[in-house]
Order: sequence, then structure tokens, then C-alpha cells
Amino acid sequence: MPAYTPPLRDMQFVLHEVLHVTDELKAMPAHADIDVDTINAVIEEGGKFAAEVIFPLNISGDEEGCVLDKTTHEVKTPTGFKDAYAKYVEGGWAALSCDPQYGGQGLPFVVNQCIYEMLNSANQAWTMYPGLSHGAYEALAAHGTDTQKTTYLPKLVSGEWTGTMCLTEPHCGTDLGLLRTKAEPQADGTYRLTGNKIFISAGEHDMAANIIHLVLARLPDAPKGSKGISLFAVPKFNVNADGSLGSRNPIYCGGLEHKMGIHGNATAQIVIDGAVGTLVGQPHKGLAAMFVMMNAARLGVGNQSLGLTEVAYQNALAYAKDRTQMRSLTGPKAKDKDADPIIVHPDVRKMLLTAKAYAEGGRALQIWCTLLLDKEHSHPDEKVRKDSGELVALLTPIVKAFITDNGHVSTNACMQVFGGHGFIKEWGMEQFTRDNRINLIYEGTNTIQSLDLLGRKILGNNGATLKKFGKLVGALVAEEGVNEKMSEFITPIAVLGEQLTKFTTEIGFKGFQNPDEVGAAAVDYLRVAGHFVFGYLFARMAQVALREIAAGNTDAFYLAKLQTARFYFAKLFPETATLMRTARAGSKVLMDTDAALA
Amino acid sequence: MPAYTPPLRDMQFVLHEVLHVTDELKAMPAHADIDVDTINAVIEEGGKFAAEVIFPLNISGDEEGCVLDKTTHEVKTPTGFKDAYAKYVEGGWAALSCDPQYGGQGLPFVVNQCIYEMLNSANQAWTMYPGLSHGAYEALAAHGTDTQKTTYLPKLVSGEWTGTMCLTEPHCGTDLGLLRTKAEPQADGTYRLTGNKIFISAGEHDMAANIIHLVLARLPDAPKGSKGISLFAVPKFNVNADGSLGSRNPIYCGGLEHKMGIHGNATAQIVIDGAVGTLVGQPHKGLAAMFVMMNAARLGVGNQSLGLTEVAYQNALAYAKDRTQMRSLTGPKAKDKDADPIIVHPDVRKMLLTAKAYAEGGRALQIWCTLLLDKEHSHPDEKVRKDSGELVALLTPIVKAFITDNGHVSTNACMQVFGGHGFIKEWGMEQFTRDNRINLIYEGTNTIQSLDLLGRKILGNNGATLKKFGKLVGALVAEEGVNEKMSEFITPIAVLGEQLTKFTTEIGFKGFQNPDEVGAAAVDYLRVAGHFVFGYLFARMAQVALREIAAGNTDAFYLAKLQTARFYFAKLFPETATLMRTARAGSKVLMDTDAALA
Repeated sequence: MPAYTPPLRDMQFVLHEVLHVTDELKAMPAHADIDVDTINAVIEEGGKFAAEVIFPLNISGDEEGCVLDKTTHEVKTPTGFKDAYAKYVEGGWAALSCDPQYGGQGLPFVVNQCIYEMLNSANQAWTMYPGLSHGAYEALAAHGTDTQKTTYLPKLVSGEWTGTMCLTEPHCGTDLGLLRTKAEPQADGTYRLTGNKIFISAGEHDMAANIIHLVLARLPDAPKGSKGISLFAVPKFNVNADGSLGSRNPIYCGGLEHKMGIHGNATAQIVIDGAVGTLVGQPHKGLAAMFVMMNAARLGVGNQSLGLTEVAYQNALAYAKDRTQMRSLTGPKAKDKDADPIIVHPDVRKMLLTAKAYAEGGRALQIWCTLLLDKEHSHPDEKVRKDSGELVALLTPIVKAFITDNGHVSTNACMQVFGGHGFIKEWGMEQFTRDNRINLIYEGTNTIQSLDLLGRKILGNNGATLKKFGKLVGALVAEEGVNEKMSEFITPIAVLGEQLTKFTTEIGFKGFQNPDEVGAAAVDYLRVAGHFVFGYLFARMAQVALREIAAGNTDAFYLAKLQTARFYFAKLFPETATLMRTARAGSKVLMDTDAALA
Repeated sequence: MPAYTPPLRDMQFVLHEVLHVTDELKAMPAHADIDVDTINAVIEEGGKFAAEVIFPLNISGDEEGCVLDKTTHEVKTPTGFKDAYAKYVEGGWAALSCDPQYGGQGLPFVVNQCIYEMLNSANQAWTMYPGLSHGAYEALAAHGTDTQKTTYLPKLVSGEWTGTMCLTEPHCGTDLGLLRTKAEPQADGTYRLTGNKIFISAGEHDMAANIIHLVLARLPDAPKGSKGISLFAVPKFNVNADGSLGSRNPIYCGGLEHKMGIHGNATAQIVIDGAVGTLVGQPHKGLAAMFVMMNAARLGVGNQSLGLTEVAYQNALAYAKDRTQMRSLTGPKAKDKDADPIIVHPDVRKMLLTAKAYAEGGRALQIWCTLLLDKEHSHPDEKVRKDSGELVALLTPIVKAFITDNGHVSTNACMQVFGGHGFIKEWGMEQFTRDNRINLIYEGTNTIQSLDLLGRKILGNNGATLKKFGKLVGALVAEEGVNEKMSEFITPIAVLGEQLTKFTTEIGFKGFQNPDEVGAAAVDYLRVAGHFVFGYLFARMAQVALREIAAGNTDAFYLAKLQTARFYFAKLFPETATLMRTARAGSKVLMDTDAALA
């Protein structure tokens, strides 16, 4: 059976030693009072909760799955899920980073980020229930009417009720402009919704008294396509004026999907049969309102893969130290045993370090990105808010696609460390790969993320935001350019930055003549951009580590960080060489293939 | 539900137009009479059998799995498996490439190769039952006593009985030198075996009347380590002198593994409790005898991934043509519909072509390698036999690791084409990725393959065999070096050949000083070597296609082949740029990581 230890030390390193989050938060009135000790204490408690309450339900939840009662349309979640959720609510975890106005604790997003990383390590399927709920909270907080806010937000904040996002229909997922669910206005100002949704995560369950579905649908006068979509709040149980639960609203689970992974989460087909809902935001502007939730969800999906990468790494490391098999190529190491622990073998180390580097790079990126979110939401200076928001927008598709792809590589590498035992369910390793696999798909496939990055976020403003990020890299290069000890970390990102600038201009011109050139390059481009960002963050982490070591700090953590950064630049970062080449290979070899794809 | 069409045209292209197998077989007395029509007819029939009888059991077999009766120790395979196997036996498929001396049909291995590719596309879990059996046949045919041969081979050839290979024990898989199963000599010349085996594929089932286990064990006087291992034939039912089944031998299934995939195959824990066996080959030389079976199995594992790559590709292609979502970046294509089929999107094409190129490259390699096997076994000229055997030995780890890694990439890419539907079981795509996943692990992990390739097959003879392969490439380069139309296919392999030669010498020197350098480079090296081989085969296939087109042949197959080859060289082959770089990055960044991996 696998084990999990919250990576508190590395979180604290990123939070306090690399990003100095409390210094940043001091500038924000909402968070000015939070100190290092408080952050550390909350994260430590969150880690305990994840490891002790949620993690033990991971394998059993996968085996048991969710069960739909076809007569009542109620879904039973795996044994223990409901109790664990009750403890989560009781502990106030749902309210952590929510607005105090609705009962939230008002902690910064960076803290919530760390808690969620650990919950995802412990049990992605379980964590999706509160995760989706938190997304619904954010969408309603941003776009809800006052009545919606007072009716729903306190219950979502406390966790008594949960929320979902109902977007996908059988004939449309990526292309929401095609959706058909209808909303008919009623005399009382509400709407009656009718339609069929699929792939609704946490769509029905027994963990909370009510479920607030946020549903995309079309009004009768809606224009065709994505500009005719509106957003509605549709509760499972109608809510009486006094806040008590009223009649059952006809929005129910018609079936559960049988999936490759995340078995513990109910992926529901949702039948909407004249259910009563209220409009969220403006008519026909539902996609914009939903994107509040989608963007949060995309960062959340990256975080799911970060969590799985970390827990897979921890278990593969433990196995590699314990399992003895063959001798080291340089002669026996464990002479008292019949064979050496497999960690002596170079390729076993390579697999382990791949996962470790991707976990640590991912953690740094997720925390940095969430700190930028805090600045976007809470900083008093409008320019800081705007700049931070722009950077978050640039980083979001990278977080979603790069970290989930890395999670695929990492969880598979960690499974491989186990040899045949990795394929056996009881070790838990294959589940990490199966659960992670959905992260490359949902909330916009990784291809969609790459088009969002290259087409919209980069070429869409002539590379202006990319240049802003480039300035951060440039500042680091300028600062450390003459430091010989830093050159192994600085040179690669300086070189890649130049290549990327040149290539971005090039692809901009080519794409102007033929948009398929953008589509052909985008996936490779996103991975290059991902390494550019990881490279920057690893260089910053190495900078801190080198300074501590130079100052005589003997904590092995810093040496470990340097070793991981060296490995990253030597073995993972060079992938950019091929990616630049294949991105440059253009669209012709893809599009002139009608005979091959006949 | 997925579909499957046997890729007969592409097989025939490789067999007859690229490799001219009947010309080669003419030189072998055992196969001199076989003609193109016979080969095509057998393959066509085999394809029908795979598509119509075996394929329909793939999803149901995955869902149902195998069930062990703990009191009788008997295993029930999924519904339909037993009947399908009876049809397989009845059709004479088990006997196809077996020796006529034991009732076989004596067809060349290349034909069997094609049949097995299709069976693997149809159902890897089912195909492992006859597959393992065939391996046992080969080991006994090569190393069995006359009595063993007459007792077991006719029944294995007909398929009435099946076979297994029992190597792994709980504490040893890769490192067989550690195994503990004991064999005590008896007065009558037999042995009593005692021990515990795990991960025994097809280890127990209800499809055949008897199972002949080939078991690795230690004699009482065995030296420690891998030089003290002997091989034994241990039947499930002892066989009477008249060939009828006798008493039940105490070698039984103690448990079935719950696995990520290949659920239809019984992965058995085998308890051996004083079972009677007979020695196969020489005492203490069991590993060498077992390697006959292992080498065949390694080629077979590559073939499993080839089969899954092909079937995943076919279904992703069909889905990409059918599913409409979004518009082409260059403007609407299906103007009569609300959206375009997703095949208009460059990255969807890239995912499809990745699988197609890996399937076609893999097919060419598997068939070529099996033709070399035919030459090794049946050619009258000793030098041809020796040279062919050497090349097969070189190619075996590449077939096993490169094709299975490519299968991982391909089945995941094809699943990704389906978006969210790829994650849902009923579409069948996620099963292809799960079933394929074991292929990277068993019969020697892909890391072990890479050490076998670089350490033993290449550096072990100072690159002599690699040079022989290099000569084939050199001949093609010389032949087509001035042909401008071929330069896009010839230049990359000529360049890579030079780089690889240089790097091989370099790593040879470094490895001499520090063996960990070999271990650190081996996995990257194998992928470079794999692309070198695929590049060579794609160049040969492009050569044939270009000649046909130049001769006025308007069959779109040739244009399709050229398009696939162009895609391969533009988008997949360039991976070698990074791999050469990371292989060169050396062992220090892996081995100087004790702090990081603490």
C-alpha cells in the first residue's frame, strides 16, 4: 500500500525563501496581517488532514466507485467519502480562502493552493467534490445577483452545499457554441431549463444536502454559436425564502460513466427536465461568466497532476531504496545483501529525478501563479492587479497542459520503477497514472490549451505579455549573468529566451498567412514555453540554494535542490531542442496528408 | 464500440514489395515452395479470424476478467475465450509455423508474425494464451529431450495443451540469479519442485486440457546466482506413458493478480508443492535454455504493442472523421454542418499520424526481424544464418523497447483524439493504453532492454554488429545518395548514422572508465537506435513508393506511404536531437544526487 508525507519543507521553501509571499501579501489590505507561522501552521494542519483522512480512501474509492440508484437518481459515493467530507466541512477547510462576507476565512489563495496540492496527492477523485464546489463559489461571487449570493454563497463557503459546472453535452465539449440545452423565461423571472449534459464531475452524490449546478443553456432569442449562451444557477433542491430546502428540482443523474480512473468521483449524465433556474450574469454572456470558473478549474487541474506527481514520486523513491535487484554497474554497494537496492542504477535515478524535478518545478509554478492571482484580486494598485492578471492568463494554459503532461510522464516513470509490481493494483502506482490521465483532457484538452497560449495569449497581443515574462527572466539573467556558479542555470534560459522570441515572431508571420501554422506549432510551442518558465523558476530556486550554501547553511535541503536543478537542466530541459525543430517543421507535413489519412 | 480491419495491404507491401520475402524464402529448402498467393491467403484468413472471433471478446474480457476458484484452484477465463480458443485449435492456427515433425504446418515465421500482429490488435489478453504456449514450444523444441519432445510438442503444436514460462518470484524478476524454487532429484530421474512463482501469464485457465509449465529452479548442488539455475518441464497433469492424462501434479494457482490491464489473461501466483518435473537442457544452464523462449517473447511483446498501435489508430482515425467540433483555423470545411470534423485540426492530424507512422514503422521492423529469424533458422548457408542471428540479437531489444514505448505514445495519442470520450470505457480507447502499459515492463523492462542493447549487443563486441547494420544503411545511402527525390529520407539517416558511430565510440570509452556512463546513456541510446532503424525502413518504403509513382502507378497507397514517411522524418525522427544531447549529459547529474534522493 502506498504512503504519503506532505511536502511541507519544499512548500515553505517556495513560499517563504523564493517568493517571500508574506512580503507580497503585506501590500494587500485583505492579507496584510498574515505571517509565516500562520501560513505554515495552516498548511501543516491541511497536510495532516489530507494524509490521515483523505489518503486512506484513495485505493478503496477506486475499487468501489460510485453507484447510482436508478429509481431515486441518488448516487452513493465510496465508503468513507461522506464522513471525510463531513470532517472537511467541520474543519472549515471549504471556507479557507473564501470571502469573510459569506463566512469565509479570507486566507490568500497561495495557502489554499498548498492545501489542494496535498488533497490531490491524497485522493484526486475525492478532492474534485470540494474543488468543483469552490469553482461554483467563485463564479457566483463574481457574477451572481445579490439574491444568488445570499442564497448560495454562505452554504457553498461552509461546504454544506456543493456546486458543479454543467457545460458538456453529448455532441459538444470543446465547441460549446453547439450546445442545445434550452432555458425558457418564466413570468416570475426564473427560467425553466431542459436538456442533457454529460461528463459532469461531482454531478450527483450523497455528501451534501444540496447541489448548485451552474448550467450553460440557450435563451429562446439566443444568437447561434458561443455568443448565445447564458449561465444559470439550478439547484438540486429549490431553496425556500427562509433558506430551507424546498421541492426537488427536476435536474437529476441519468447515468454514471465507467471510466479509466477517478472512479471515486461521480461523472454524471445530467438530465434537465424543466428544472427551475436563475440567470447568472448577463443574457448571452454565460461563457464569459463560466470562464471565471474555467480558469480557476484549469489551474486546479494542473494542481491535480502536481499532487499525483508528488505522491507517485514519494512511493517510487521508497520502493527504489527498499527493493534489491542486481548489482550496481560499478560493483556491489550493499555487500551484506544478495543484491543492491535498485536506486543504485542510473536509469532508476533518472526516472525518480524526472518525477522529483517535475513536482518541484510544478509546485513553484503553481504557487507563483496563485500568488499572482492574490495580487490580481487583492492588490490596491490597479497596475499591479492588471499586470498580475495578464501574467496569470499567460501562465494558465501552461499550468494546465505542461504540468498535466509532466504528470503523465512522471506517474508512468514512477510506476515503471516498480517493474511488474507497478502494474498490480495493490501497490497503488497504476492508479496514479489512470487518475492523472483525465487531467490531460478535461477543462479544455491540452491541444486547446496550446492554441489558447499561442493563438490568444501570445500572438493575440503581439507577444506583449510574453515580453513581460521575458523581462523577469532578463532581470534574473542581468542579476546573475556574471556569477559563474549560476551560469549552468542562467545560460540555458537566456539562450532559450532568445530562440523563443525569434520563433514567436516567425510563427506570427507564418500564422498570419496560414492559420494552420499556428495550430501545427502550438503543442510543441507550449512545451517550450513550459520549460522556459520552469527553467526560470529552477534558476531562482538554485539562486536561493547557492546563497544559503555560500552563507554556510548546511541543511542538505539546499544541496538537494541544486542537484535536482542540475538534473532538470541536463536531462529534461534539452527537450526544447527537438521541440523547436518540430514546431518549425510546419503544417504542410500535417495537412498534406489526405491520402495517408484516407 | 471500437472496430478493427486487418491491415492486409500494408502487410503485403512490406512482405512483397519492400522485403520480397518469397525471393528470400526460395533460398531456404523448408520454405522454397511458398508463394505470394499462399502467404496472402493465410494472412487474409488469419485477419478474418482475429477480427471476427477474437476482437469481439476484447472489451467483455476486460470487464469480466478471470476468476479463480480457491477450492479447486481452477481459473475461469472470460466468457467466450474458451470457445474462441477451440476455434483457434480447430483452424490449425497454433500449428502454423511449427515443425511438421510434430504436426506443424511449417510455414515461415514471417507469416506467423502477421497473424499474431492481428491477434494482438484484436485482443492482447486472449492472444497471450497461445503466445506463451508457442514460446514453450520453441524452448522445448530447442532444448528438450526426445521424450519431452514426443510427449509435449505434438500437443503444444495442435494447441490441445498450452505452455507457460515460470520465472519470476516475489523477490526477483529482473534478477533471476536470486531465485529460490528448488528441484530435488528423484530416483527415477525426475525432479520434485517446490517454490512460489508470481506474474505467470496464462498460468492457469480452462481453455486447454493440460498446461506445460517451464519452470526455473535450483538443483541442490547449484552454484549461487544465475549460473545455478536449471529449467524444468512441469505439467499440470502428469502424462502417462500412453500419452493420456494422469494424476494432478501439485503445481497450482494460488491467486490471481488484480492488474491495470490485460484483465482477460490470468496472471497467476503459482504454488509448486513437490510437483514432478523433468530437466530441460543441461543442469545449471536453464537460463540459456529459457532465453530461447525469452527472445521470442521479446519480439512478441513488441508485436503486442504494434497490434495495439494499429487498432488504436484505426479507431481514432474513424472518430476524427466523424466527430464534428469547431471550425478549421483556415475557415469552414464542412459548410453544410454546424462544425467541421476534427480531422481538419493540425494537432489532431499530428496525433493520428504519430500512431500511423509508429504502426507502419513497427510493422516493417517486426516483419524484417522475423524474416531474419527465418534466415537464422532455415537458411542453408551458415554465414547467412550467423549474420542473420546477429542482426536479430541486435534488433530484439529495439523491437521490444522502442515499439512498446511508441505504443505507449500512440495509444495515448489516439485516446486523446477522443477527448473526454477517450476516458470512458465503452469507447475502448483507454483499454488499449492500459493493455499496452504492461508491454513496457514484462519480458525485461525497457531499461533492461536498453542495457542489453548498448552494453551487450553493441559495446560487447565493439560495435561490430552495429557496423553490419550500418553497412545496410550505407548501401542505401550510396544507392540513393544522388537521387534528389530521396534526399529528404536519406539525409537524416546518413547524418544520424555518423553521429551514432561517433557517440558509440565515445560512450565506449567513457563506459570503460565508469560503467554507470553506459547505464546513464542506455535508454536514450536505444531510442536513437530505434529511430535509426525506423528511418532506414521508412527510407526503403519511400524508395519503393517513389519508384511506383514514377512508373505511373496511381494507387493512392504509395502517396499515402510517402506522406507518412515525410511526417515521420519531420515530426518524430527529430527527437534524436534531444536524445543525443541528454545521452551525452552523462551519469554525474544522475549519480551525484544522494541529497536529492535522500
